[in-house]
Order: sequence, then C-alpha cells, then structure tokens
Amino acid sequence: MSDNNTSAKKPRLDEEAAKPGTADEGMNIAKHGWFTELGSMWPGQGLSLKVKEVLYKGKSKFQDVCVFESDAYGTVLVLDGVIQATDRDEFSYQEMMAHIPLCALEAPAKRALVVGGGDGGVLRELARHTSLEEIHIAEIDGDVPEVSKAYFPGMAVGFNDPRVTLNICDGIKFVQDAAEGSYDVIIVDSSDPVGPAEVLYQQPFFEAMHRALRPGGIICTQAESLWLHMDIIKSLASMCKTVFAGGSVSYAYTTIPTYPSGQIGMMVCCKGQQLDMRQPRQSAPGAHEQLGIGPLRYYSPDIHKAAFVLPQYAYDELKDSLTHV
Amino acid sequence: MSDNNTSAKKPRLDEEAAKPGTADEGMNIAKHGWFTELGSMWPGQGLSLKVKEVLYKGKSKFQDVCVFESDAYGTVLVLDGVIQATDRDEFSYQEMMAHIPLCALEAPAKRALVVGGGDGGVLRELARHTSLEEIHIAEIDGDVPEVSKAYFPGMAVGFNDPRVTLNICDGIKFVQDAAEGSYDVIIVDSSDPVGPAEVLYQQPFFEAMHRALRPGGIICTQAESLWLHMDIIKSLASMCKTVFAGGSVSYAYTTIPTYPSGQIGMMVCCKGQQLDMRQPRQSAPGAHEQLGIGPLRYYSPDIHKAAFVLPQYAYDELKDSLTHV
Repeated sequence: MSDNNTSAKKPRLDEEAAKPGTADEGMNIAKHGWFTELGSMWPGQGLSLKVKEVLYKGKSKFQDVCVFESDAYGTVLVLDGVIQATDRDEFSYQEMMAHIPLCALEAPAKRALVVGGGDGGVLRELARHTSLEEIHIAEIDGDVPEVSKAYFPGMAVGFNDPRVTLNICDGIKFVQDAAEGSYDVIIVDSSDPVGPAEVLYQQPFFEAMHRALRPGGIICTQAESLWLHMDIIKSLASMCKTVFAGGSVSYAYTTIPTYPSGQIGMMVCCKGQQLDMRQPRQSAPGAHEQLGIGPLRYYSPDIHKAAFVLPQYAYDELKDSLTHV
Repeated sequence: MSDNNTSAKKPRLDEEAAKPGTADEGMNIAKHGWFTELGSMWPGQGLSLKVKEVLYKGKSKFQDVCVFESDAYGTVLVLDGVIQATDRDEFSYQEMMAHIPLCALEAPAKRALVVGGGDGGVLRELARHTSLEEIHIAEIDGDVPEVSKAYFPGMAVGFNDPRVTLNICDGIKFVQDAAEGSYDVIIVDSSDPVGPAEVLYQQPFFEAMHRALRPGGIICTQAESLWLHMDIIKSLASMCKTVFAGGSVSYAYTTIPTYPSGQIGMMVCCKGQQLDMRQPRQSAPGAHEQLGIGPLRYYSPDIHKAAFVLPQYAYDELKDSLTHV
C-alpha cells in the first residue's frame, strides 16, 4: 500500500470524547467499549462492534465524523453515527458500485464522476480502469477525504491517481454545471437520505445527472437495502423510470456485513438506450500495481450478473418499477 | 395461516426472568429492553434487536430456549443466546435450504429427511412439494417443536402435513439406523458447530448421510457465513469432497438480516453423480392452500442459480475444495 497519504494533515483527536468507555450518546459509543449503530432508517435493530480504540472524533461543517479501531473489522469510519466503511468489508461495496456501471457500458468509459465517495474507495476502483482519462469527484465535506487519508490509506489511495480531480463542493451544483453529455458514468456514493445526502435521492438531482450523461451513459447510485427500505427503493425506481424514459432502470445488490441488514443495493440507469445492465460488456479490470491496488476481491463477471437477481419478494415489489429485472 | 397449532401445550413462561428490562447476562437481554446476540463464532460484533415483550424463557435438556416479540422482526426464537429465526426473515433460509436440493434433483423427491429444523420451517417448505410421500424429521430437542407450535404458527404449520413423522431423537443415530439408500434428500437445519450441534459438522455424520442417500440424492446442510467462517466452510467442503467422492460438492448462500453478517450458506452435495447443483431441474413449488402456506417469497429458479455465484474472494478460497463453483 502506498504511504503517500501519511503526509496528509492528521485531523485533531479529541482526547476527552474519544476515550472508549466514556458514555457518549451522540456517537453511540457505549460504556463498555462497544459502538452501537442505531438509526431512524432501521428502527428496532442495531449492529454493535467492539471498539479497540477511538482514533478520531470531530465535527465537520456537515456532520459528526468518527474513526475507531474495531476488534473484528479493522478501522471503521462513522458519519453521524452511521457506519460508512470498515477495512474488512468496504471492498464489496466499492467494487460493485464502480465495476457494475463501468463494465456494463458498450464502449469503455473515458470520463467518470463520483458524487460523494469522499473516502476514496470508489476512486480506487475507478483507478483500475485504464480507459479512463478523467475522474472527477464532487464531495461536499472536505473533512472526509482528510480523515480518510489519515486513517484509511487502503481507500484513500484512490486520490493518488493523477487522473483524479477532487472538488470539495455541493454535488448537485457540480452536476448542474457540468457540460451536457460529458460523462460516461456517474456514481453516487452517498450516505442515507437523512441529513446532508437527502437531496441526492430527489428528482432534480437525477434530472441533472441525466443531462450530464452522454447517451448510452450509466449512473449507479447507492440505493439502500431490499430487506429494510422497499418503499424508498420502489419510489426511487419509479422516479428513475420517469427521468430515464427511453433508457433502462435496474437494481443490483451486494452483501456487506457492516451495513444494516448485511446488504446494500444500487440503482443502475442507462440514458436513452435500453441497455441490459445485467450483462457485463467490458472485462473485469485488474490490479494497479503502481498505486499499490491489488486484484479484485468481490467483483467478477458472474457476480455482476448474479447481483441483479432479486429474491422473489423483491421481484414482485419492483418488477413494474424497473425496466429489466 | 392455520390455527391448528394453538392447541399445543403452552410452554411455561418464567415471569421473573422474562421481564424485559431485567438484566439477564445469560440470555443477553439488556437492561434497556434490547436483546444483543453475542457469540464466540462472531467475536467483536453483535446484532441488537429491541424487545417488545419476552414471551418464553426456559431451559430444555439441551439448551436455553427464549422467545421474544421484537419491535422490528416480529417474534424471535433464540437458542443458547443465538437467533434461530424471526417472523420477518426466516422464509429466506427455510426456502433456500429446502428448494435448492429438491429442485436440483433429476427426479422428483419421494422421501426427505430433516435433521434438526425443530421449528418446522423447513417442513413447511417441503410440504409444498407434491411429489414427496414421506417427510421424516429427527430433532434432538423436544422443546423446540413445542415452543414453535406455541409461538410460531407460521413455521410450525409444517408439522401439520400428514406426510410428516416427527422423531425426537439424536439425528446422528437416526441417520445411522436409516435403511441404506433410502432418502432422496437430507436437509440438516442445525444450529452452529458449538454446543449440541457440533457433531453435525463432523465426518462420521456425513458418512452416515451418504450411506442413507440413494445414488443421485442430495444433502443440504447449514454452512455458516462466507464473511465470517471461511475456515469452517473450507474444511467442511474438503471433508465433503472426501465423503462424496465421485459426486459433487457446491456452496450456496442466501441473505438474511438477523443471522451474523446478514447471510448464511449451505453445503449442497450429490451422491455418486457429478450433478451440477447450480441448475434447477424441478419447477419451483407453489402454495399449499390446504395448510395455509402461501406462495414462495424468496426462492425462484433464477435465485437458485445466483445463490451459487461466489464473490471473488470466496471463489479464490473455495474453488479447490468444491467440485462445481
């Protein structure tokens, strides 16, 4: 792994609040050294992880930011009390979010945009794609890349790719200002639709993305859990079918133990072409040795296809809202 | 749903221990009305469910048995502190454990055996298969069917099928005593390999099952999580490859939020024939209206195939231990 990131400004560690064993309702750090993830989007359930050491606790302009070392999942990034990434399982999400749209394209991607994704993990996956000439990222919270560079070198390595331009800005405005038809792929790696990311689930943002995509281009957006959020997914799918009229709208999911219910899905839409996104058309990308990025760990052409196969209950709920299911 | 089960003897409710809000380390019922599942097989992590009401707490000859009503997942069955089934997501596990082996068979099954599975959920799924003439179940703990009949009518409905014979006995001995080649399918719906179920993961039991199967018959055994138990799965797969020499050994998995890591896998082995279990050969079964069993909610021929597609890391680890991957 590259060590280039260690030069990043080490964010301030609040010694008092950070001590595990200190009751801290705001960050759900339990008295006995456990972090419990409770959230309004998964009432009545919560995953707990044993905390070895709290490494960072801060308040950015937008959210609470916490990093701790866990017993079982390595280093953990938490925003507003919600687990965003852990060393041990983040690759599942990042690989599937990046390679499903990139590999579904008919022609190799040249220009990609990431909205959110400030931890750098999706960038790391994009870095594997040699066809890409430009990789833009619009992250609203400048503290997230800094924290990632300091504590998650394995994800933040994505920032080291010279094709990457980091923009700390409002993602919606960035997309609205982009030239029409200028991106092959837009990936929305956002937190949940409560708090700063709420607007990233609404129609004006999807219309802006549709405009910024080239015909035949693909968006891939974080789209919650089939087990927990069927209503959100269903209305998101219907909205996408309106915005991507004449195109295609599909839903895929991946397994990831530290997200609520152990899985997370993605809405995958193609502009102006009824492309079957369940079919990979580009080869799975390899390692990027210069950046210290190893071989793929989750994605394969077969898992690409399998990710779109919905359990019967989800098929029944979503079949009318999706174009390919 | 049939109401036939309500006549079952209501197990004793220990009022004192059952009160939510009572500290009870043994059952991990937390002070503030949450149940937290901690276990030696998933150190450093634990799922918590908010408890509405503890319905039953007892000690059988083999294990602690607890039933509570949760806020988010309906009624929950807990054995020795480990969640076995919840109203909301049990169908995923039960359907996949039953229909994968039954539908992979070349000829429709006539005789099936369930080892464990005392909650009746796998029986409910077997009841959908009209070809079955006899369904045997060998459950070691007589309290589990009683508790299920009292609190989980939606699972225990499986016991109402007249083709079912319930044997409260040691599953290993039952399989050893079975006539050679007498079963089309054996399903092992066991708890984890710590405590009473440990022997169900060992070679003598698999040899006994191999003997009891007809040539071309299939076993399907609970086989833990790809995210948590790769070592167990790998050695189980290798052992199966030895026992089922000349046959086939595959691994499938399903998503289920209340099992550790949000998924559970199954080892699927065929006797004496290199049958590709990834391919369904029998139609997916329908509802059983007489018993009040509705249509399938998880299983479909497509999800059957997708369940065998391993993420790259799991493929790399298991490809040499499985015959079809």
